[in-house]
Amino acid sequence: MNIALDVMGGDHAPHEIVAGAVLAAREYGITVSLVGKPDAIQQELAKHNTAGLSLPVVPASEVIEMNDKPTQAVRNKKDSSMAVACRLVKSGEAQAFVTAGNTGGALTAGILHIGRMKGIQRPALITPFPTQHGFCTILDVGANADVKPENLQQFAVMGTIYARRIMNIANPSVRILSNGEEQGKGNQLVIEAAQLLEHTPGINFQGNIEGRDVIAGLADVVITDGFTGNVLLKTAEGMVKLFRTVLTEELKASPFTALGGLLSKPAFGSMARRLDDSEFGGAILMGLSSVLVVGHGKSNANATRHAIRVAKQSIELKMIEEVQQGIQEVNEAAAHNPLVAQEP
Amino acid sequence: MNIALDVMGGDHAPHEIVAGAVLAAREYGITVSLVGKPDAIQQELAKHNTAGLSLPVVPASEVIEMNDKPTQAVRNKKDSSMAVACRLVKSGEAQAFVTAGNTGGALTAGILHIGRMKGIQRPALITPFPTQHGFCTILDVGANADVKPENLQQFAVMGTIYARRIMNIANPSVRILSNGEEQGKGNQLVIEAAQLLEHTPGINFQGNIEGRDVIAGLADVVITDGFTGNVLLKTAEGMVKLFRTVLTEELKASPFTALGGLLSKPAFGSMARRLDDSEFGGAILMGLSSVLVVGHGKSNANATRHAIRVAKQSIELKMIEEVQQGIQEVNEAAAHNPLVAQEP
Repeated sequence: MNIALDVMGGDHAPHEIVAGAVLAAREYGITVSLVGKPDAIQQELAKHNTAGLSLPVVPASEVIEMNDKPTQAVRNKKDSSMAVACRLVKSGEAQAFVTAGNTGGALTAGILHIGRMKGIQRPALITPFPTQHGFCTILDVGANADVKPENLQQFAVMGTIYARRIMNIANPSVRILSNGEEQGKGNQLVIEAAQLLEHTPGINFQGNIEGRDVIAGLADVVITDGFTGNVLLKTAEGMVKLFRTVLTEELKASPFTALGGLLSKPAFGSMARRLDDSEFGGAILMGLSSVLVVGHGKSNANATRHAIRVAKQSIELKMIEEVQQGIQEVNEAAAHNPLVAQEP
Repeated sequence: MNIALDVMGGDHAPHEIVAGAVLAAREYGITVSLVGKPDAIQQELAKHNTAGLSLPVVPASEVIEMNDKPTQAVRNKKDSSMAVACRLVKSGEAQAFVTAGNTGGALTAGILHIGRMKGIQRPALITPFPTQHGFCTILDVGANADVKPENLQQFAVMGTIYARRIMNIANPSVRILSNGEEQGKGNQLVIEAAQLLEHTPGINFQGNIEGRDVIAGLADVVITDGFTGNVLLKTAEGMVKLFRTVLTEELKASPFTALGGLLSKPAFGSMARRLDDSEFGGAILMGLSSVLVVGHGKSNANATRHAIRVAKQSIELKMIEEVQQGIQEVNEAAAHNPLVAQEP
């Protein structure tokens, strides 16, 4: 197995990314192709013991920066590490592309250079999300700001297969994010999508869900457009920061609470880890003809290793093939039953 | 001053609602009209010392329940406490309507029985929201699931006046909730609304804001549609619960952390209060021709008192008149400059 890693992407590139590649190559015994500026990569590799590891360097002279405009950057920087890595996947040399770089850039490069899966209208960004009971799966968390009901239907199929394969849930419940749990609640998009989801084969649709109940863990898979999904994710992230700040301030208020804070420090650390996303392994851009994993911009070596793990698992579990089949079944059902699909 | 209170609305109606009315009448020296079933109200009033307080009972034989469908319920239950209270406002007997009942019912009753302000297309639900630096003002948090760019423009004007009057911020910054802070990021609605807001007189527009930065306190007023605003609010609420659960679990993990938890308990209580919404005083449905305050469904006596306080303040500060004038200025500017308003 060969995974193409964008060594130049992410806030801590290239050092943490190369370190993560070394960890992954050692732990999983796979090839990790290091795509980026050869000098920078060699300099980082020299810091590690790489004896016996398969870490070929694939040169790419350009970098899509965090503040680049995705479409423009992908088009103009033809020798960017993202473009080179995607072409490695397209040619069959590598089986997956992993990056912690500019998310928009990764999506654009993936769609342009790897290409959509047959029958998929819009690829979606899918990620595990911490809840009271463990994790749920949310998509789309940022690939598509505007979607149609039939896109959300495809997201439900992709989310179901992800939850089954990566999260090990036999019959994952699917709900659509809305402003009320009652049937018929929602904006026009959600109301139409919910009607469509009721008649979609192969998914266990259970209606609407509110933001609160997403976090309470009342759904295995949560479907939403990339705009709202992004707001949910970023709000949750902001709340974690707010708790830390407020708690730190309140704990300083008296010697007793300060001592209490000191004694309960391991609990806070443990909580922070539960809410931390570096173990998630990054988001998958689902709906391409190969696996694409986008790690968090602030990925360290450990997060990079987990992103590579998710890519490896996705390949081993034949997720692309399974999504392909799921989408085909929905499309075939739609051809026979007008309720399954609306007019595109 | 006379405030019409829906005594039958809310999870703890009528006892906590009547108790809150007693507190408010005593503290603020105003009349609170208790609208609802007379027997139930008298029974609750008997539990309090109401000597010298102005708490007239206004009979209403029906109740709009929490799980009633708003439009249907408001239309069918002509003698509901909400309808009677709204008519009291419409007739001029009372100057504001306060309820902790079914939000959709309150909006529908308000629009139907009190009526929209002149020039307002869509009233919006506006609420303070806790941030790292205190509070910001968010609207719409649930009145309109689908909106147009020009509705968001009016929300910006209403939010600015609320922030100035209720939150005491001289020149409140206004941002629009999006999936990226960069200009041009957003769904179609946000992109169009942002262009409109750039050219809106009387507001201090500063571009896009992400969910994370709303909580970080980087805007005084946050503009969004009622669907996304509701997702943001409910997600934040869910995170508070998650935080409490995880922290409690982690603190139980060892005797040291448990002792630490015990000692730091006052800090947790203090934090909970900072994140608690009962002091917010409820959301205002802004854009009606009179003041309408919707408290949280779980309002207790204190929350009810604060909701009444917000109504009283809004009347004293002539917020309706000021919003009326702000909207008129935007509409006049739009008549002279096509950039200020899109075609409705």
